[in-house]
Amino acid sequence: MRALDDERPGAREALRAIYPAGGRAFVVGVTGSPGVGKSTLVDGLVGAYRARGERVAVVAVDPSSPFSGGALLGDRVRMQRHVTDGGVFIRSLATRGQQGGLSRSTAAAVAVHDAAGFPVIFVETVGAGQAEVDVADATDAVVVVTAPGLGDQIQALKVGLLEIADLLIVNKGDREGAERALADLTAMLALGARAAPALLRTAAASGQGIAEVVAALEAVRGRPAAERAARRRRQAARQVLAIAGERARDRARAAIGDESAPGPLAATIDEVAARTLDPWSAADALSRV
Amino acid sequence: MRALDDERPGAREALRAIYPAGGRAFVVGVTGSPGVGKSTLVDGLVGAYRARGERVAVVAVDPSSPFSGGALLGDRVRMQRHVTDGGVFIRSLATRGQQGGLSRSTAAAVAVHDAAGFPVIFVETVGAGQAEVDVADATDAVVVVTAPGLGDQIQALKVGLLEIADLLIVNKGDREGAERALADLTAMLALGARAAPALLRTAAASGQGIAEVVAALEAVRGRPAAERAARRRRQAARQVLAIAGERARDRARAAIGDESAPGPLAATIDEVAARTLDPWSAADALSRV
Repeated sequence: MRALDDERPGAREALRAIYPAGGRAFVVGVTGSPGVGKSTLVDGLVGAYRARGERVAVVAVDPSSPFSGGALLGDRVRMQRHVTDGGVFIRSLATRGQQGGLSRSTAAAVAVHDAAGFPVIFVETVGAGQAEVDVADATDAVVVVTAPGLGDQIQALKVGLLEIADLLIVNKGDREGAERALADLTAMLALGARAAPALLRTAAASGQGIAEVVAALEAVRGRPAAERAARRRRQAARQVLAIAGERARDRARAAIGDESAPGPLAATIDEVAARTLDPWSAADALSRV
Repeated sequence: MRALDDERPGAREALRAIYPAGGRAFVVGVTGSPGVGKSTLVDGLVGAYRARGERVAVVAVDPSSPFSGGALLGDRVRMQRHVTDGGVFIRSLATRGQQGGLSRSTAAAVAVHDAAGFPVIFVETVGAGQAEVDVADATDAVVVVTAPGLGDQIQALKVGLLEIADLLIVNKGDREGAERALADLTAMLALGARAAPALLRTAAASGQGIAEVVAALEAVRGRPAAERAARRRRQAARQVLAIAGERARDRARAAIGDESAPGPLAATIDEVAARTLDPWSAADALSRV
């Protein structure tokens, strides 16, 4: 994924060059807590779209640890059956805890596959806190996946995922507690002010419910042009915000430097650590570097 | 939490003013997937520290949904027993999906309680993707909580939490699968290059293992001053980066405006949405506004 990082020499120019060629793909974010079966679901969806004759790209965001070096992740093990299919492109991004890295590299990977002409792109990411906002910023549809037995269903609300869902899926729907999860989620959705997302039940490991998910996705894909345009405008605004924020962080990082090569702001950081200066004043000093 | 948002009029000045008074608290981040029992564990730790005679503040970060308005969260229900204890201060932050809101409001809340003289501050947050980096940036110790039966333990690695853990806890340790979870984590820790975090087993709901967690936390608290200073310097640098990034985003947001009040960059965003301009060039235009 390094080549797609938009701040690497040459990469930003490449991304600028291909950007006008994009905008045609149907980009689907798939998010949810660890263990709900996102990869298995995406695998099923890839198979279904391939059966429809559409080429599919998968961008899987693993906020993996430098600790494991990604080696333990078994790089999309379940998707091996698609590896020899030229119509499927699978890319795993290891964000390695880098702040802002997720949205930056995700947006770049989506832009590349979009420009390359993939009509369907899945973006798979662990959803909680920040990630779900990122995925909504970069996609045309958001699928939020949950599963029975992952603690109280109220926990799902905590992570703010319902807010951004176009489809809400109870995966592992053949397991104990599935009925309860569906009932709880139905009750919660009834309380919501906005139009409720479609609520579906799947057992992706055995292929159950995949056809219904595809049908629901196609309904989103067929939204009126005006609605799609409004969403793309929001995405554009958020993407520019993200780039602006990342650039400011990059500039600050350079000004601070590191132990072996302290930058002009290094002494200022020492003051913050010693509490003789507050971090907001230190940020003010940045603009004078 | 609104009053602590560092960009509200007066709030930033207040935060600057109190900042020098801080730096004495022992700030402990507690993070993990939804449903692992973080609140129950923190509740137990609060009780244990109160029994030691220390005042405790809890900053609970709920990335809750505007969808639910936070009303369904049952604001720290399990901690009600501490509500009448003047030595405990509990503050829930609803970040409501605002990008960057977590680190900004968390840092502000920690700064306030630190300056107010709380010797122990717990920061409880859902950990995945971005949040775990945020919590490591704002704390002196990180407790990563997991539980049996939350899918493959390898999923825990995916979210990059082992990298930042000082303590790794298998909570709900009286449930089926706890032995297996401990064995898996022990094996994974053995593979790691860096010094492994302490691995502990708790059943927080019945108080089991709380004393051992306190002992492990106190070991971290007693680290050599040089080690503590290095960590604080890293935190200071990251906090300044976060502030710089947020300010840039705020400036971009103002330049874009909204539907009712378009800013000078509104037309530029339309171009990005229409793919006649790429988002990186749009971000370039920001500096000329």
